[in-house]
Amino acid sequence: MAAPTWVAVPDDSPFGVHNLPYGVFTTADRPHERRIGVAVGEYVLDAGAVAATDGDLAAATAALLSAPSLNPLLAAGRPAWTAVRALLTGWLTDPAHRPAVEPHLLPRAAVTLHLPIEVADYVDFYASEHHATNVGRIFRPDGAALPPNWKHLPIGYHGRSGTVVVSGTPVVRPSGQRRAPGEAVPDFGPTRRLDVEAEIGFVVGGPTAQGTPVPLAGAEDHVFGVCLVNDWSARDIQAWEYVPLGPFLGKSFATSVSPWVVPLDALAAARVAPPARDAALLPYLDDQDGSAPPRGLDIALEMWLRGEVVSRPPFATMYWTYGQMLAHMTVNGASLRAGDLFASGTVSGPERAQRGALIELTWNGEEPLVLADGTERTYLEDGDEVVITATAPGPDGTRIGFGEVAGRVVAAPPQG
Amino acid sequence: MAAPTWVAVPDDSPFGVHNLPYGVFTTADRPHERRIGVAVGEYVLDAGAVAATDGDLAAATAALLSAPSLNPLLAAGRPAWTAVRALLTGWLTDPAHRPAVEPHLLPRAAVTLHLPIEVADYVDFYASEHHATNVGRIFRPDGAALPPNWKHLPIGYHGRSGTVVVSGTPVVRPSGQRRAPGEAVPDFGPTRRLDVEAEIGFVVGGPTAQGTPVPLAGAEDHVFGVCLVNDWSARDIQAWEYVPLGPFLGKSFATSVSPWVVPLDALAAARVAPPARDAALLPYLDDQDGSAPPRGLDIALEMWLRGEVVSRPPFATMYWTYGQMLAHMTVNGASLRAGDLFASGTVSGPERAQRGALIELTWNGEEPLVLADGTERTYLEDGDEVVITATAPGPDGTRIGFGEVAGRVVAAPPQG
Repeated sequence: MAAPTWVAVPDDSPFGVHNLPYGVFTTADRPHERRIGVAVGEYVLDAGAVAATDGDLAAATAALLSAPSLNPLLAAGRPAWTAVRALLTGWLTDPAHRPAVEPHLLPRAAVTLHLPIEVADYVDFYASEHHATNVGRIFRPDGAALPPNWKHLPIGYHGRSGTVVVSGTPVVRPSGQRRAPGEAVPDFGPTRRLDVEAEIGFVVGGPTAQGTPVPLAGAEDHVFGVCLVNDWSARDIQAWEYVPLGPFLGKSFATSVSPWVVPLDALAAARVAPPARDAALLPYLDDQDGSAPPRGLDIALEMWLRGEVVSRPPFATMYWTYGQMLAHMTVNGASLRAGDLFASGTVSGPERAQRGALIELTWNGEEPLVLADGTERTYLEDGDEVVITATAPGPDGTRIGFGEVAGRVVAAPPQG
Repeated sequence: MAAPTWVAVPDDSPFGVHNLPYGVFTTADRPHERRIGVAVGEYVLDAGAVAATDGDLAAATAALLSAPSLNPLLAAGRPAWTAVRALLTGWLTDPAHRPAVEPHLLPRAAVTLHLPIEVADYVDFYASEHHATNVGRIFRPDGAALPPNWKHLPIGYHGRSGTVVVSGTPVVRPSGQRRAPGEAVPDFGPTRRLDVEAEIGFVVGGPTAQGTPVPLAGAEDHVFGVCLVNDWSARDIQAWEYVPLGPFLGKSFATSVSPWVVPLDALAAARVAPPARDAALLPYLDDQDGSAPPRGLDIALEMWLRGEVVSRPPFATMYWTYGQMLAHMTVNGASLRAGDLFASGTVSGPERAQRGALIELTWNGEEPLVLADGTERTYLEDGDEVVITATAPGPDGTRIGFGEVAGRVVAAPPQG
């Protein structure tokens, strides 16, 4: 049983004291002062402010909580993450701390949330077999659905870290080169196939030196926490540009992330075995010996479009785990920095109603979604809002909430 | 005629007063204090130290020169770049400044050079028609050499900014998945096809807001300067991984850059018309109306392997210009940050001795290079050093030097 908290938190809150996700906020009276907050119930704890009142706290620890982003905490590494989580849990469960802590619990509804990390490198994977199979069938109908490398390594690519934005940021419909079916040359204009990808993101800390791979067993030393990602995608731009060097402008206009980073430590009860492997894995990716905690995560996503749920992607079905993604990403000696972010790629389950992107849900527009009010959608229209939420099992039958990543589509500006 | 300098600089110096490239250095007595330096002749000017002595200088300008990297200067934008260059030129040409400036000229050989910028996003293009054609023939012998999009847009992808290193940093041979010809499954080990790519890099400043494309005419407001890039590549890892999301671990282990960033303003005499265009360009890429300075650059590269020149790639032959690369990279609304770096992709000319990568020079190992001492090379061996240098025309028959980007291959560590 999780330690009880003296904070007024309903038992079924997704932000119970067993969760304690980290974010960055400002208040209306200090709009330029970014502070680290920890969500609990309907509150956000001003962690730096409490740290400043705790005379027993090491100055270095207080500094981690008084920064304008999570990056110093990320850089401090696993021992610091464990210690800080224990510290926060103590503040919120030991009644002796209540007089000092309670004044720094602010109503969550009254704060503005910001990007929680300064993103260093952003990598996006392609780790769902169901998603990769669907997209392969749509984009390459005459070839094999999965490329020959797919079961041997988690395919990934670098995205644009400078256009990672926090939930709530409007997304301007991008323009670019689109080639219509049957045409030899492209035209130019706003994308006609604006899509979403419901993904899970992993926030990295504990920097490594160049030339030093992170083995599977080291994953927990470098994955600080988990967030929600919407990898907005312009399918027509992407289809024309992506051979041979991969997605570029079809993705780089915006990637939205949730404001709360759920500590990996909060997800112990969500761990599940990943799917059975169909191909023998090289040793650096082989997680079948049972010596480590399973790295599948039973995170249940929901994707909302115009206020209704259109998909429930199950993260537990992902073929590749965060440990394999991290081991692969560094096996060539690539270093890690605090603030690196890697995402899973679209989460899609085996059922149609579990697909995490419109390209799959509508089979590239051939099978429109019909919403409750009769509205049909193939791809996104201007004004559409997409919200992705998720929860996972917590201790003692509780649920761990991830909050949401939301974004509304804004019309492309008039062409000059 | 360039203004004469009171500094003792030979007339044929590649670092004459018409060049004035920027870098970041430390000295042995202050090894942790990174300072902005400007190369002139055999000296490096401690720009921040001079700024501190100049009582007429605005504090904001002095601060740009007193930073530990070029990023604040990059953020300040084009008007500041022009003003600072004029300031430096004045310091080094007006004898009245000599007493204050001369004490801050340090011998270049005595300083340690560092990465000049904190790299924000790193994008690599594929802008040489000769390179793309050669690689297409090698990797896809049964298909068209150029993909159908190649003449319509400058193909590019995001690389890993966290593994961009300064010239002189050793490069550890990366390990990864390699699939031998004819094999169905990959094995694992150090790359057998370690290659280089001789490229030109463009350092970006003048941040833009998301949703705001930079038109061709805006290129000079956002390109601060030019450097040399060696995009180290593991061809066997790349060949196995790159379908469908592009190069990842075959590139992300290291990218080396020269320590000196040559101001775009120093390259006025190097501007040349780019090659004739074979396909009509969409308006945002169309540079054929003659209203702007031509954005081809007559930069002559040399690639040295084990102490001898093995290639002389001519940058003037590049199909796509820096203006087109920047316009394309932002046409979807992707924002720019100070410290963004984009590179041209391998520079290869039409002749064999003008190819900027070993995969082309040796036709994927089928035609080994024979060095002067009789040594043969297909790809790089441990201990090999590669040095890329370049010069371009300066005013009045002078040459603008780029210095060099050098790196030596270190053996892969034993497999655990």
